[in-house]
Amino acid sequence: MTHSDFTPTLPLPAAPDDALRARVQAAIDGKTKPLGALGRLETLALQLALIQGSETPRLVQPQLVVFAADHGIAAQGVSAYPAEVTPQMVRNFLAGGAAVAVLARQHGLALTVADCGVAAEFEPHPLLVRLKVAGAEHGSADASAGPSMSRAQCETAIVQGRRLVAGLPGNALLLGEMGIGNTSAAALLMARLTGEPVGVCTGRGTGLDDAGLARKCAVLQRALDANAGARTPLAALAALGGLEIATMVGAVQQAAALSRVVVVDGFITTAAVAVAAALQPEILASCVFSHRSQELGHRRWLQDLGVQPLLDLDLRLGEGSGAALAWPLLESACRILAEMASFESAGVSRSSG
Amino acid sequence: MTHSDFTPTLPLPAAPDDALRARVQAAIDGKTKPLGALGRLETLALQLALIQGSETPRLVQPQLVVFAADHGIAAQGVSAYPAEVTPQMVRNFLAGGAAVAVLARQHGLALTVADCGVAAEFEPHPLLVRLKVAGAEHGSADASAGPSMSRAQCETAIVQGRRLVAGLPGNALLLGEMGIGNTSAAALLMARLTGEPVGVCTGRGTGLDDAGLARKCAVLQRALDANAGARTPLAALAALGGLEIATMVGAVQQAAALSRVVVVDGFITTAAVAVAAALQPEILASCVFSHRSQELGHRRWLQDLGVQPLLDLDLRLGEGSGAALAWPLLESACRILAEMASFESAGVSRSSG
Repeated sequence: MTHSDFTPTLPLPAAPDDALRARVQAAIDGKTKPLGALGRLETLALQLALIQGSETPRLVQPQLVVFAADHGIAAQGVSAYPAEVTPQMVRNFLAGGAAVAVLARQHGLALTVADCGVAAEFEPHPLLVRLKVAGAEHGSADASAGPSMSRAQCETAIVQGRRLVAGLPGNALLLGEMGIGNTSAAALLMARLTGEPVGVCTGRGTGLDDAGLARKCAVLQRALDANAGARTPLAALAALGGLEIATMVGAVQQAAALSRVVVVDGFITTAAVAVAAALQPEILASCVFSHRSQELGHRRWLQDLGVQPLLDLDLRLGEGSGAALAWPLLESACRILAEMASFESAGVSRSSG
Repeated sequence: MTHSDFTPTLPLPAAPDDALRARVQAAIDGKTKPLGALGRLETLALQLALIQGSETPRLVQPQLVVFAADHGIAAQGVSAYPAEVTPQMVRNFLAGGAAVAVLARQHGLALTVADCGVAAEFEPHPLLVRLKVAGAEHGSADASAGPSMSRAQCETAIVQGRRLVAGLPGNALLLGEMGIGNTSAAALLMARLTGEPVGVCTGRGTGLDDAGLARKCAVLQRALDANAGARTPLAALAALGGLEIATMVGAVQQAAALSRVVVVDGFITTAAVAVAAALQPEILASCVFSHRSQELGHRRWLQDLGVQPLLDLDLRLGEGSGAALAWPLLESACRILAEMASFESAGVSRSSG
């Protein structure tokens, strides 16, 4: 059984034409600075211009969504924190006391918390959206003993992620997540999608010690063995992923389809993007990778995807905190294009080179 | 002859006490996040707290000063740009079209341009401060043929930098600079202060090709030989530095003396901080290094100083652009301390570790 509205992908906008690319690059090169002197900010400006199809991209009503869910595999002791922390942190997001809530306030990012399957029921709240999936209301099953979701549950989550983003305003989606056990789900997806061994994909998450890390690796190997047949991106997502990751896959697809910028956070949000990119490689053109996490597998995975993150601040919090911290760089990139003078307009001499 | 008000250093505030350090660290560790999960943002928060002597540091009225001057050594063809670009860019800063002006507007940084010896006379402007030095109104002498400044000129520049900062409001100073030829002055100071060979200290500046880089290295070696006797930090600054670098040395000293945060930009501002730190190593505690520049010597010099920059975005523009880009991270660090909930206040369970 599959979800009636489900298609594996959404149509993406046509690739930007070379003429626009050349015009934007010429505009950047004509600004009053040595050629290339603004480094990564220049490539970011070009990327944003191509996503929006405009020489002067503008970012409006940015939306930071924290996708939250619980994971059956957490019962295997793969996290330093108990599973009860997932609903506790959801309440902390809503109350404004969590790191991502603080950073979202600082930068004017609208915050939404999506309950994709947290093991609790919450009072209604203006920032909370209920995206629970039938049969997995309180989280996914334990992947170390079989699939974490049915194919239909996974497809429902994807469709719900698409609908959520379609209903949000603005032209930028910042990805955040919360779910005790979700570095395990992300590591499993990395292992299956990239073929890297578990030891390369598995990190300390929120702070496992050496013994905890060894236990986590053993549990994840069992999960890979228990789901050995799940080889396609969507089969792997259902068997090894989690509800918040599946919902994020749909959110990324919808945002890209609407020509919105997707700001990726750390290891877990990268897992969602990696699944979406396995289905449609060109979706990466819509994604800005905000930071390189301290989580072990993240560096390798970013290399594997062929992308370079903006920040490297030894973060390993998740929540969307890295995406929020990088946000002002996206705004700077737009302002450079819109506001900087050109050599001609400012009457500045060019290089002799 | 020396400047009558000159002393080599200013008294710095007493070092922060260990009790405050422990209280701040405990406050950071009690926030709702895994221990250390905010990485470099946590060490930044601690540093800002210690500079201000407060568990909840606040940043008010941040001042970005672009110190500008011309350099006699530019006549030796050490830059890809002609010296006339220095005054042209000063006008571009004042008109708001330069990168640093755009970024200062974005982040609410008050912008001041200090004419420390630009080879031009400017009309009065509300953002422009005239800090020219008698006998070097239009720039320093050519260091490849002898000292770039007299000792008295250098001391005057330092005193003027102190006075400028003493007259500015707020508790944060962001360093910026402009001066065709000033990567040469900074490379000379690096070579003399660290003992590294010219080839390790000398980069392409605003965009020299291979032949230009070889010529620059040869000119800088001549300058080191022509000023072989200038070995102390202040003698080296006068002989090999530039007027904007000397003025910045005083500015850094005054800011640190007033318990203000100093946000260092790239290679040239690092030269000023390195001179100040050679005189008073504890001054580094007041300095936040905003980014690692693409300029060849910067990585090694930061390592030599034992400091780690926040950003690594392949910038090589100067102006204070990197300092401005990193500014929101300082604000985030303060907000984390002031606004994040604790495990107790939010009712979140702690790690089992």
